[in-house]
Amino acid sequence: MKKFFYIEKVRKTAPLLHFLTNYVTVNDVANAVLAVGASPIMSDEIQEVADLVTLSDGVCLNIGTLTSRTIESMKLAGKTAQKLNKTVIFDPVGAGASTLRTDVARAIVRDISPTVIRGNISEIKAIFADVGTTRGVDAAAGDTVTEQNLPEMVQFAKETASKSGAVIAITGAIDLVSDSEKCYVIRNGCAEMSRITGTGCQLSGICTAFAAANRDDLTAAVACAVMTMGIAGELSAGSGNVGMRNRIIDTLCVIDDDTVERNAKYEIR
Amino acid sequence: MKKFFYIEKVRKTAPLLHFLTNYVTVNDVANAVLAVGASPIMSDEIQEVADLVTLSDGVCLNIGTLTSRTIESMKLAGKTAQKLNKTVIFDPVGAGASTLRTDVARAIVRDISPTVIRGNISEIKAIFADVGTTRGVDAAAGDTVTEQNLPEMVQFAKETASKSGAVIAITGAIDLVSDSEKCYVIRNGCAEMSRITGTGCQLSGICTAFAAANRDDLTAAVACAVMTMGIAGELSAGSGNVGMRNRIIDTLCVIDDDTVERNAKYEIR
Amino acid sequence: MKKFFYIEKVRKTAPLLHFLTNYVTVNDVANAVLAVGASPIMSDEIQEVADLVTLSDGVCLNIGTLTSRTIESMKLAGKTAQKLNKTVIFDPVGAGASTLRTDVARAIVRDISPTVIRGNISEIKAIFADVGTTRGVDAAAGDTVTEQNLPEMVQFAKETASKSGAVIAITGAIDLVSDSEKCYVIRNGCAEMSRITGTGCQLSGICTAFAAANRDDLTAAVACAVMTMGIAGELSAGSGNVGMRNRIIDTLCVIDDDTVERNAKYEIR
Repeated sequence: MKKFFYIEKVRKTAPLLHFLTNYVTVNDVANAVLAVGASPIMSDEIQEVADLVTLSDGVCLNIGTLTSRTIESMKLAGKTAQKLNKTVIFDPVGAGASTLRTDVARAIVRDISPTVIRGNISEIKAIFADVGTTRGVDAAAGDTVTEQNLPEMVQFAKETASKSGAVIAITGAIDLVSDSEKCYVIRNGCAEMSRITGTGCQLSGICTAFAAANRDDLTAAVACAVMTMGIAGELSAGSGNVGMRNRIIDTLCVIDDDTVERNAKYEIR
Repeated sequence: MKKFFYIEKVRKTAPLLHFLTNYVTVNDVANAVLAVGASPIMSDEIQEVADLVTLSDGVCLNIGTLTSRTIESMKLAGKTAQKLNKTVIFDPVGAGASTLRTDVARAIVRDISPTVIRGNISEIKAIFADVGTTRGVDAAAGDTVTEQNLPEMVQFAKETASKSGAVIAITGAIDLVSDSEKCYVIRNGCAEMSRITGTGCQLSGICTAFAAANRDDLTAAVACAVMTMGIAGELSAGSGNVGMRNRIIDTLCVIDDDTVERNAKYEIR
Repeated sequence: MKKFFYIEKVRKTAPLLHFLTNYVTVNDVANAVLAVGASPIMSDEIQEVADLVTLSDGVCLNIGTLTSRTIESMKLAGKTAQKLNKTVIFDPVGAGASTLRTDVARAIVRDISPTVIRGNISEIKAIFADVGTTRGVDAAAGDTVTEQNLPEMVQFAKETASKSGAVIAITGAIDLVSDSEKCYVIRNGCAEMSRITGTGCQLSGICTAFAAANRDDLTAAVACAVMTMGIAGELSAGSGNVGMRNRIIDTLCVIDDDTVERNAKYEIR
């Protein structure tokens, strides 16, 4: 990766981002997005999503608390964004946990072709693992990316990116950010982050900012967003989950590309 | 009460809990539930509640921002949970403040037979006080549990538990946790907690965790959840409400049964 | 302004306030309102808004995440409040960003005659600037209140107050709080506040508290609410946005009229 400049680009261009997201973590997402220098607008009302997508530089679809109403709004927002060539980040929260979520996630991937799909390994598998060659990987690998199954998981990430046309970010103890050709394997972050609600949603939020501001270098920008969140977590660890959540977002306010570059733990496969 | 082991049981079994709850305090509820070691899923979409209840070890119904849509989802979730013999905690937020809330609260109690009902004294009275022998208590006692009216309120709690078949948790300056036979009178907590939005919702959240993980010792488990929240409040007091909210949840991350046992102020009547 | 007593009046009367507001900042609004000594109820269910408005001393309508459902609830709440002569604060979040928001904001102003309208300059212009004499000011002034355009903006605020019959609060780097005769020009607050989601919504929340508790001195009370929020921001500045958000609300818990009076930077024009 060349010298990092991804956060600086977010701060310089201050992209306007439209979120159709869940009501559990929406406040943290808004503050995390403001922290890295972008401007969030939250709305899932179908009468105005086309207007807001048109104004925006990027759109984030997050199905964390999807309803029959917001599913329609997300589809319209996604299609409008696609038509206008806007960056679309999709976060398939809970895909696999209910038939509805899995079906909606697959429909969004199929009909909207998101620019980036970010989820944990179970969510990504719920969407993609019953097609093509990935069923075997799924059965073999279980639901964690480990040092042991890393080669197969990198292969799965690349194939999924190739099939979907999206940059795929699979996050967990080891994070993978992949296009069809190369896969960033990232070892930042810490276990305490999994005890905080919404670190995944916040990460999708800052991915939207990084991707919208760095469209000419998309895979690296998403990888940098993943590293940035992981490093913010490392710098904020301590007892308690709400205090840590607060420190992570406050760290996002001051973190810069040099800090990320210095603390990044990654390889490209 | 025998030696406490309720929190340890939550942490060991990490129950999956489904919340149909309000959008005001949902993030704090999620973090409080994660803090004690359980896993929350939030959804009120009727198309998926049956799937999610089926996956879960317990369900929490909270009518804090009920809508005509979510009322139907709560009823379906509650009925599914009842059929599958899952633990159901009901928090009748604001029962008595509108005809709708009172009617919905009564319908849920009648049709779903929650395992635990947790509210303040006004909410519990709004549901139960116009039936049976409690009208008099209501008129006589006003809307606070005090040292003076404690004998009648303990009686009211036991009768309400008997009538509803639920463990009844009436929380306030003095907390009562009662089944039809015994009533825990708990004097933990502090006045500053009433200035924080959502401490009641968080308590219902952790009651769901404690109850789901300790079904064979339900009344004591709910009493322990109430003590735990009260002690977390005592340990977190200080100027300001948001800072205290944060400290309470962070305390829930590290509190253990021994700390609760050492700080518990309760008697059984 | 005579000696401040506005916060004391809120704390003494503890007004009950009904919020129909957005799901992004609702928790912060609830805590900010509790911090200044009022009691918030949040609900946007049309079946109960009339009951809740009837109970309440003031109503806050905030269109931050409006939906076709909540628009109807807001209209009914507003009309009920108007009929019962309750204080109504309107926060036209994002007016101008979509046709829907602009149309709804104008309809609320026209049909409900809010007691107070609080927004940023763009939102206030989106509602009012195409009528009467303000188009020129709009074109000339751009979208910021500055020392240079202050005379025209004060004139615009007074005319808008006169036209609408409301106290108009236009907040930004310089805040204006105006009725048809006098305009408070307030220079409290700090730039860091714009990086926190929801400081505007919180301000509308505390304006609702101050206005409901001080109806006989409305313009000054709203001006005092604006100063209070600005001073809380000044006293809470520091790195990070979530930490600062927390400190602002905690400061609102302890701030008093004397502190506000001592730190207020305002003139009346």
